[in-house]
Order: sequence, then C-alpha cells, then structure tokens
Amino acid sequence: MSKHQEKPLIAAALGHRPSRYPAWFMRQAGRYLPEYRAVRAKVDFTTLCQSPDLAAEVTLQPLRRFDLDAAIIFSDILIPCVAMGQSLTFDKGEGPVLSRPVRSGADLKALKRPVAAKDLGYVGEAIAKTKASLQASQTMIGFAGAPFTVASYMIEGAGSKTFTEVKKLLFTDATTLTGLLELIGDVTIDYLQMQVASGADILMLFDTWAGQLTGPDYRQFVFPVTKRVLSTVRQTTGVPVIYFPGQGVDKMHELKDLEVDVISVDWRTRLSVAQGVLKNVGLNVSLQGNLDPQTLIAPEALLRSKVRSLLEEVRTIAPRGHIFNVGHGLLPHTPPESLTTVLDELRRFQF
Amino acid sequence: MSKHQEKPLIAAALGHRPSRYPAWFMRQAGRYLPEYRAVRAKVDFTTLCQSPDLAAEVTLQPLRRFDLDAAIIFSDILIPCVAMGQSLTFDKGEGPVLSRPVRSGADLKALKRPVAAKDLGYVGEAIAKTKASLQASQTMIGFAGAPFTVASYMIEGAGSKTFTEVKKLLFTDATTLTGLLELIGDVTIDYLQMQVASGADILMLFDTWAGQLTGPDYRQFVFPVTKRVLSTVRQTTGVPVIYFPGQGVDKMHELKDLEVDVISVDWRTRLSVAQGVLKNVGLNVSLQGNLDPQTLIAPEALLRSKVRSLLEEVRTIAPRGHIFNVGHGLLPHTPPESLTTVLDELRRFQF
Repeated sequence: MSKHQEKPLIAAALGHRPSRYPAWFMRQAGRYLPEYRAVRAKVDFTTLCQSPDLAAEVTLQPLRRFDLDAAIIFSDILIPCVAMGQSLTFDKGEGPVLSRPVRSGADLKALKRPVAAKDLGYVGEAIAKTKASLQASQTMIGFAGAPFTVASYMIEGAGSKTFTEVKKLLFTDATTLTGLLELIGDVTIDYLQMQVASGADILMLFDTWAGQLTGPDYRQFVFPVTKRVLSTVRQTTGVPVIYFPGQGVDKMHELKDLEVDVISVDWRTRLSVAQGVLKNVGLNVSLQGNLDPQTLIAPEALLRSKVRSLLEEVRTIAPRGHIFNVGHGLLPHTPPESLTTVLDELRRFQF
Repeated sequence: MSKHQEKPLIAAALGHRPSRYPAWFMRQAGRYLPEYRAVRAKVDFTTLCQSPDLAAEVTLQPLRRFDLDAAIIFSDILIPCVAMGQSLTFDKGEGPVLSRPVRSGADLKALKRPVAAKDLGYVGEAIAKTKASLQASQTMIGFAGAPFTVASYMIEGAGSKTFTEVKKLLFTDATTLTGLLELIGDVTIDYLQMQVASGADILMLFDTWAGQLTGPDYRQFVFPVTKRVLSTVRQTTGVPVIYFPGQGVDKMHELKDLEVDVISVDWRTRLSVAQGVLKNVGLNVSLQGNLDPQTLIAPEALLRSKVRSLLEEVRTIAPRGHIFNVGHGLLPHTPPESLTTVLDELRRFQF
C-alpha cells in the first residue's frame, strides 16, 4: 500500500478503494463558525491569510468539531493578485475589491511577477503548520483560483453579474487577455508547486466563473491555460489534481483532453449528468460533490434524506471514485450542527 | 397555407419551412435605445407598463429601426405581482424590489387572485394597439414569467445571489411554496390566455432562475406547474409556446414530457449540446437563440464572424426549426448599430 493509499481522499481521487468514504466541505473554515468569527474580530481578512499561525488555526477549527478527511488551507483565490501588485479589500457584505483593474496592455505590463517561495511563502508556512497537526489519514488540500476566474476579478476589479469588462477585453484586445491568463497560469503553477513542497497532498483549482463564457470562447481562450496548469503541476509534483468548473454542466462539455484526477461537480448538475458528459468527452475521472450547500439549512430529517439520495445516486452511477462534498462553498448562515448530521448520515449509509 | 404559416417566426416555431429566417432580440425594446430613454425620462417603469399607448410605443420602437420578425409586448415578468397585491419599485441600478415578500402561509393567503381581463387589461390593450401597427408577416409575442422565477422574486422580495429565502421555504414549508407556485400558475394561464385574446400570436415563458434549483428539486416542485401552464395555454389558445430555462443546460435534462414548441437556449449552452439533451429526453422541438448578448459590444468583423459561427452550427445540427435570437436579454450598453450588423449578416448567410 502506497503512502497515498493510507489517505481515503487520495485513494478515491486516484480511483482506488478507500478505507472509508472521504468527506470534506468547501469553505469548511469560515464565517458560519463562531470560533472563526472570534479570530476575524481581531484581524482583517487579508492579514489573516498572510499570518501563518492564524491561517493554520482557522484551517484546523472545523477538524476539531467534525470528523473530516481533509483540511483545505485557509486562504483566498485572490491572494496571488496581492503578490502581483493589486490590493485586496472586502466591501461590507459585497465581496472582494481589487485595486487597479487590468484593462489594457499597459495595465498588464505593470503587474509584478511574484516568486511563490518568497512572495507567497506565508501560504507555504501555513500549510506546513497545519499539516503538522493532521492525522496520517487526513489529507492536506492546497488550492488556487483557475486562471480565468482570477483574471475575471483582476479585470472587473470586483465581482460582476455581467462580466462586461472581461468580455470587452476578450472581444477587443484578446492579446492582453491571453497575456494575463498566461501570466496567471505561470504564477499559479509556481504557487501550487510551492504548496506541494510545503506539504499539500492534493491540489484543487477553483474555476467559479467558468460558466460565464460561451463554449467556443471557453475552449479557445480558457481551456489551453487551464490544461497547462493542471498538467504541469500534476506531472512536476506527482500529486493528484481536482478541477471545479463552476455554474453548471455546460463547460464540462469542453473538457476533452484535460489531464485531471477529479472533477468537482457544481450542485446545479446531477452527478449522473456530469458523469455522462465527462465520459462522452473521454474523461475517466473521480467525482467530488455535490450537495446543494443550501440543503444544510433544511430540517434534520430532510437533510438526512438528501444525503441518502446523493449517496444512492453515487451507488447507481458507480464513478471511478467519489469524494463527498458540497457543490459550492458553505454559506455564512449554515448551522454548524448540520455538518455533524451530514457526516453522521454518510457514516450510517450501507454500501 | 394557414394564417400562421404566413409568419416566418410561427412557421419556424412549428417546424415548418419559413419564407425567411425569423429573428428578434430578447429586450429589443429597452434602455439601449435613446428613444426608449426619452419615454422613460417622463414616466416611471411600472407606469409605462400600465399605460397601453406608451407600452405600445416602446414595443414598436425597435421595429422602426431594425428589420425584425417580431414585436414582444413591453412589460415585465413581475407586473402580475402588482395585480396580486405587491408593489413593484426599482432600486437605482439594482433591479426590482417587491413589497411584502411571501414567506408564510399567511402571506400567501393575503395575496389577491387577479382576473387578467380586469386587473391586467392594460397589457391586453397594449398588445391590441401594437398589433394594429404590425405587418402581416410580423409576429406578436406575448409573455409571462414562469411560476418558479416569479415566485422567487415574490419570496425574496428582490433579486438574490443565493435564493436563501426560496430554499428556506422549499425545505421548511413546501406546502406554502407549492401553493404559491400553483396560484402563480393559475394567474399566468389566465394572463396568457388574455394576451392571445388580445392578439398575441405566440407565447414565451421566461424561467430566468430555473438554474437555481437542483435537478431533483426542479423536477419535483417546478416542473409540474410549468408543464401545466404550457400545456393549458397551448391547448386552449392554439398558439405555439416557447419556454426559456435560464442559466445553462442543466434543467433541460429535466424536461421529459413537457409540451412545448420551442426551447429558447441560454447563451452559456452550445445549441448542439441543447439539441442533444432535448432529443435524449424525447423533446422534438424548435430552438431559439443563442448569441451571447455581450457579443454585441464586439467590433463589427468579430460580431459578424460570431453570427456566422452560430448559423453554421444551426446548419450542422439541423433542428426542427430555428428562431434567431440572443441567449439572454440585451444589455443597456448594447450599441444599437450592432443589431443592424447582426441582422445584415443573418440575411447575407447562404443556407
């Protein structure tokens, strides 16, 4: 048995039989936990991400409460943008704001090209500190935003409903858009390699806004750099990689030839639909997901029945491997006891 | 040749061969037109919808500029909510706000059950006035919001990113949610029948937020009432019906047994993917769509090539019929001359 196979999550990611059903929750560290809010009362979000002791502490908080198979390092997909020269703040309740949005070749040139070990070393330190507290069976997850999703924030300067600035750049200055995506790609590869060197056992690439492009635009502009990042980190580090194309199944139709171990499935998409589409494009991968995170506000009996339905679907479609998770990040109003309920139902389920 | 077949849009909707390629644009009347803004400078949005002369005027504005095959009556999917007792206002740049959100059985009971001919008669008058100005080959489109999308606004009281109140009701008081959906269904059937009696040649049901539920929740709670509305108006009025399940292809997987003539395809989804999914669930329908509305900000040459690509895709997949359109409403920053370019390229295309 390899070192990896001792960790149920890694076994499932690689399509081996895990010793137990691996489970974690996207945004399992965060605002729904009072102990997280207590830390945040003393320090702003960006400082928290940049302080290895505090980042490790909040990363470990959910593992003290819940029987989880993984820790995901507490950080934000926009932290590398800070190292690239933008400043990151959070509008009250409104999400992230990045200074100096990138909307021209000159804006692109003005960006710094960080070296992860130096400029993002605090993330590596936080991973090393967290890992020292994990059990051998628990998996340390590193992550980054996918190039298109990070680029969208860097161009818009904030979240957006219509992504008008992104599309303006796509339609009028594709050279700058491609240059930005390739730069983010380079930075992300270095950043993820550094995370593995610091102790990450698996890597996840979050492409939250993948759904904001048409199929042809995604395939032409976004797929090549996404594939390059995943293939490079997978080959150079030897750890498995997870890709999350957010906002539904549409972009899964565009993934032919992607080299990836796990596709994380948005809650909008039935796992059976995702599996059918991925098989059609030739991807034999493990699946992760995909309980609707809002389900965790449901009363206990309904929540348990939703967990059972999901597990029954997994049994029916029999993917190469399955990692139990939500289909998008937990929301701030999630009752913490719902995670206990979900995990209890998972452990009771008879396979 | 039947009366319907004289109208290219109706012919395409029914799968007959149209005398020319039918085209219109969702939100073709609206803020991107200076003549619309001139009307709106004098009257608020809700009053505009409730004034038949003004509503007919803005409905006809795009037909004076562009070579379009259809007029869609200027209104809003939330206008019936006003007749049901909520008041509708628009936050500056933020979208609609409905008073007294429906979040309990008592809130549901307090709603009025309007009679369309009386309480929404101004929409019928606007349709009759508009129709009097149309050429025989032009199609008069009536529309309504689909029950789930209208219910979402009525429950949230505004747009939402997370639809937490909708899901809370779904998970804790499904009886009230179902009661609300059925009430909206009844109101919508009456409302659409009245629109046909006033002159509408075809009806479109906008389900903008269909993507906000999981597949199982959509199929259990939303599909039955959606099917009831479409089947009833189709059978009682004899006009064809178009259904628009917004936010991607996921919910098209749930449409088995829907009785509908046209599926309008969101721009996130390739027409070829939509056609494959719809065939799989047994729907032999015409397609409408689906240029990304943001494409209209592209420079002319690129815009023309995107139109050609779409038409080439249609030629390849050969749907039963096709109505050219955008895959979601035009945005306020759309340059009006882009519509001329799109229609010119459509008319040049060699089939």
